[in-house]
Amino acid sequence: MLFERAAVIGIGLIGGSFALATRRRGLVREVIGVARRRETLDAAMAVGAVDEVTTDPIAAVAAADLIYLATPVRAIPALLETIGPHLREGCVVTDGGSTKRRIVEAGDRLPARAGFVGGHPMAGSEQSGPGAARDDLFEGTVYFLTPTEATPAGVVACMTELVEALGARPVLLDAARHDRLLAATSHLPHLAAAALCGAVAGVPELEVYAGSGLRDTTRVAGGPAEVWRDILLSNADQVLAALDGLSGALDEYRAALSAGDGARLTELLAAAREVRERMTAPCAE
Amino acid sequence: MLFERAAVIGIGLIGGSFALATRRRGLVREVIGVARRRETLDAAMAVGAVDEVTTDPIAAVAAADLIYLATPVRAIPALLETIGPHLREGCVVTDGGSTKRRIVEAGDRLPARAGFVGGHPMAGSEQSGPGAARDDLFEGTVYFLTPTEATPAGVVACMTELVEALGARPVLLDAARHDRLLAATSHLPHLAAAALCGAVAGVPELEVYAGSGLRDTTRVAGGPAEVWRDILLSNADQVLAALDGLSGALDEYRAALSAGDGARLTELLAAAREVRERMTAPCAE
Repeated sequence: MLFERAAVIGIGLIGGSFALATRRRGLVREVIGVARRRETLDAAMAVGAVDEVTTDPIAAVAAADLIYLATPVRAIPALLETIGPHLREGCVVTDGGSTKRRIVEAGDRLPARAGFVGGHPMAGSEQSGPGAARDDLFEGTVYFLTPTEATPAGVVACMTELVEALGARPVLLDAARHDRLLAATSHLPHLAAAALCGAVAGVPELEVYAGSGLRDTTRVAGGPAEVWRDILLSNADQVLAALDGLSGALDEYRAALSAGDGARLTELLAAAREVRERMTAPCAE
Repeated sequence: MLFERAAVIGIGLIGGSFALATRRRGLVREVIGVARRRETLDAAMAVGAVDEVTTDPIAAVAAADLIYLATPVRAIPALLETIGPHLREGCVVTDGGSTKRRIVEAGDRLPARAGFVGGHPMAGSEQSGPGAARDDLFEGTVYFLTPTEATPAGVVACMTELVEALGARPVLLDAARHDRLLAATSHLPHLAAAALCGAVAGVPELEVYAGSGLRDTTRVAGGPAEVWRDILLSNADQVLAALDGLSGALDEYRAALSAGDGARLTELLAAAREVRERMTAPCAE
């Protein structure tokens, strides 16, 4: 038992899974779930993710020694400001937001009696909502923690232990490096998948003609638009830089194809295949 | 039993799977496999795909009433010219090439005693070689047939029956429409995946940081470089047009992100999600 009482604010896929996983593993004694909409709260109760529910984040955090923020990423900085005055002495505050710079800035402004560290589980799916929550969502995944110079060492140690107890692999790095990395490995693939959907929008009978290649390449574009809008906007500078890299790579293919340059095409495709192989190489723990 | 003796020229994933599937279902009495390299022939024998093997396509086709060409797409037009004078009266010639205009032109120049129809099974994987062959590779997939005005009706009927007997869904359309369709649904996703690999090539420790999104989005880029070079070059005009569509779609995201235009981003992402949903809608048979 690491915590007595967790307040999970935002109980969709990530918050709901965090609540389920920590309760079932005995890492928290009880979980209070917070959401704006009654249907979300009912769904979280129905799947057994939470012990209690409320629509009031202030009431929830006042009694909690662990606060987990899992709302859409754009809402998290303001939420940190709202709950700040109501936090208990010695509580740990963290979040599951997909981009970290803005959140970590807001977290570092919390009162000194609370300890904050930013987090980002590299888990998820194109599904959303508490109904999609799974108690094994974090197992075997990378879980980023983004401490700053202001983060108490005890908070980092405690969150590292919690992440490991969830079966995930904690990876510590600073928020700016996190956001640059995720622009390439997560936000750019999302844009590529979504743009590809845009490019094939005019194809008739896609349910017949979309083969497994197109389906796999576009899978992530099935994710919720508002969630991804917020992720992309909160990391716009890094995403735009990554997007330039993708456009540049496409231009190389365009040039080789226009010139009928088979040797150059083979070179580009073989290099891409090597990168692909690096992704699937056994993970050196 | 539709055929007595099939000659399968090129016995990699597609040719090997076609040989396995037709033999095991009793659609051909025997299969002779043709390849240049001894190791390929040995591997095809080892997996039970073929009854006999030879490195000589002319000897193989002289005794066959079904000829299936499954070499890399670029080699097929010349191969049709080579085997033409040696074909038996009444034989059926078809292929499994991923692009169809050039092949169909060459097929229509075969002697009148042979009947040709172009084919393209929308099956495959990023694996290759006879060792990857599966007797169920075509089950539940779309199998394009691209007859022309020169194609005998009996040949279309016979190949339609064979394709259905393999558990695939025959779809008839002309070669030019096929190539335009596949540029969008297959060749463009491959380029997007490969370019994305190029864009993330500089990221360290990809085996740790590549999440399921990046892995899915780039899966097809694991395919063999030479095979894809040939596919792309043989359909360059249509692929370049499709590539312009992708670049245009990426530019829309770039503009919305640069302007911080959340409403426009949501609109684009929601439209992409709808296209994605069309791909996975239940297939109306």
